[in-house]
Amino acid sequence: MFVPPDTVSNEMLVDSYNEHSIQWNEKNKEAIERGELEAREQSSASFIEKASGIKSRYFMDGKGPTEVGRMYPYLSKLAPEDNMGTPAQVRMAYEAAMGALEEAGLTGEDIDMVIISASIWERFIPSMATELQSLLKAKGFAFDMSMACSSATFGISTATDAIKSGMANKALVVTAEYLSPLLNFESRDNHFIFGDAAVAAVLEREDETASKSAFRINSRKLFTEFSTNIQAGFGSRALVERDKIGDPSQRFNQHGRQVFRELLPKVIELVKGHLKATGRTVEDFKRFWLHQANINMNVYATKKLLGREPNQEDAPIILDEFANTAGAGCMIAFHKYKDDFKAGELGMICSFGASYSIGCFEVERV
Amino acid sequence: MFVPPDTVSNEMLVDSYNEHSIQWNEKNKEAIERGELEAREQSSASFIEKASGIKSRYFMDGKGPTEVGRMYPYLSKLAPEDNMGTPAQVRMAYEAAMGALEEAGLTGEDIDMVIISASIWERFIPSMATELQSLLKAKGFAFDMSMACSSATFGISTATDAIKSGMANKALVVTAEYLSPLLNFESRDNHFIFGDAAVAAVLEREDETASKSAFRINSRKLFTEFSTNIQAGFGSRALVERDKIGDPSQRFNQHGRQVFRELLPKVIELVKGHLKATGRTVEDFKRFWLHQANINMNVYATKKLLGREPNQEDAPIILDEFANTAGAGCMIAFHKYKDDFKAGELGMICSFGASYSIGCFEVERV
Repeated sequence: MFVPPDTVSNEMLVDSYNEHSIQWNEKNKEAIERGELEAREQSSASFIEKASGIKSRYFMDGKGPTEVGRMYPYLSKLAPEDNMGTPAQVRMAYEAAMGALEEAGLTGEDIDMVIISASIWERFIPSMATELQSLLKAKGFAFDMSMACSSATFGISTATDAIKSGMANKALVVTAEYLSPLLNFESRDNHFIFGDAAVAAVLEREDETASKSAFRINSRKLFTEFSTNIQAGFGSRALVERDKIGDPSQRFNQHGRQVFRELLPKVIELVKGHLKATGRTVEDFKRFWLHQANINMNVYATKKLLGREPNQEDAPIILDEFANTAGAGCMIAFHKYKDDFKAGELGMICSFGASYSIGCFEVERV
Repeated sequence: MFVPPDTVSNEMLVDSYNEHSIQWNEKNKEAIERGELEAREQSSASFIEKASGIKSRYFMDGKGPTEVGRMYPYLSKLAPEDNMGTPAQVRMAYEAAMGALEEAGLTGEDIDMVIISASIWERFIPSMATELQSLLKAKGFAFDMSMACSSATFGISTATDAIKSGMANKALVVTAEYLSPLLNFESRDNHFIFGDAAVAAVLEREDETASKSAFRINSRKLFTEFSTNIQAGFGSRALVERDKIGDPSQRFNQHGRQVFRELLPKVIELVKGHLKATGRTVEDFKRFWLHQANINMNVYATKKLLGREPNQEDAPIILDEFANTAGAGCMIAFHKYKDDFKAGELGMICSFGASYSIGCFEVERV
């Protein structure tokens, strides 16, 4: 995995948000008094931690989001001079990929399929995955895909299909979540939610693996159902409505309570259905590596599944350090909490979030 | 397939480009005289046709690109009021999907996998494919992917893998190319190249198909190799460098001669290699549905393959009407030139273009 260079605590974010809000309220005093604008409320580091489990996050650039006069990122130190160079997101992907290749005992030249699956992209053409393929000297083919918070699970499933059907032999799937440009640091309800990070996975046939820490994917289940409760307006329309590139509507907006209420029952139903379909019970599983959006969501879901209060061994939380890293979250949890698995032990990776999307894998340490 | 509402001929594009250039040269006269800027040269409708085979193209909005004071699209008539509504690109995809479902004798409810694979996207979150899935009342799961000019072939291959591995039963792959926001209508070398269009394909197991015009995919070959000879800088970086959203670097730029020189030998080598690997010769094929970027590229490639001058039956050209529709091109050619196939007759679909990417399928009328 790749951890971005800048650490930003709740306190740092809240300090700049609060100061910015005071200035904004002052600047818009008359409109607020006339009832045309709503005064911005103050944020609180302790409330954020209580409501979400988040204490800190990593950003590619932490200066911009905490600069009262700016409130959005600068280019990162990994960014090329202009938008013709290697995207910072590809650099993130490369670093994560190198770690995954090392753990798999492979080099880039062993790979013949490269996917970058991420919530938001720094470039479309040429595809970022093709540039990563080139940097790694990988063979075969590459492409980019996206499924919001399930970007990693959907990407891994797609590569698994390609290997099963014989189109690829060894695949690399990288979820490089460079989310900070898409975040609204002026929104009290949204400014603290996300962080940047990249994770990578190597997929290969079991009889070919040289890895000493491999897991087998025993079964998979993917699901999507349209919702706009997590939405960002950014896309090619910004090239037509050029004066709106700075608008809040371009950036993430999340109706957290609706998501909690609507999505969690679907997650629990899908996991239970998948267990039933595969002849498993929750007791068969040593661990659930869940999507990392909100600690209360994860505790609620795990409790519903296990029928008891979960602990860090049952369903590890990495939100405190990383915040919500969209597609990367469940895989960061997996990466950090898998080394104690013994051959034959089962775990479940489960992403859930925007779109809505859910992706669940049963994995077994080989 | 879906054909956008506005037809724009070479003459219409050239008239506005030329008038705009005269005004631009006049406005920048002093800087041009000082050698700081290069005077913009005039374009020519007949030269465009001779150099590319393109006579016309369809746009979601034809007014903006031909308005001398603007030179980039307005929102299309299919666009939602703001960037929170159903993207115009999803509307395009829906129309194309309905046609494909009808031809397959299916409804949306029969589908359990939806992919939108397109060069550029109007939205990331929630995924456009999930909204299409919802509009079609399709089941299962959906996601978006992208591989420039090979978006359709890579998308179809990805769905084929999912069906083969049992993750999906019936898949819908839509390549909705809404390229016009990404085009630089102020560049003489680029303003005429592209058009908008959407195509859709239904994939299912042969023993399940009710279609009377189905083709079997006998074999597939995908290939990518990084190149910046076709590039567009647009992506999430625009949210950080907000003042650059109107810059030419955001938009398509193509070094056509290098692409011709570098990519075509790779295409010919890949096709020949694939024929060899599958025990075929070119004589086994009734038709080649090639990527539609430039008539001279297609004539050159087909001549190299067939060893003779190709005709419209060998390798149909739809460039005259549609221009380059990126990922959609080879599938538009397939759609329009497949009805004369008899059971057992073979054809080859071959995309090639930006990234670089190549995607070739041997298909057989069943």
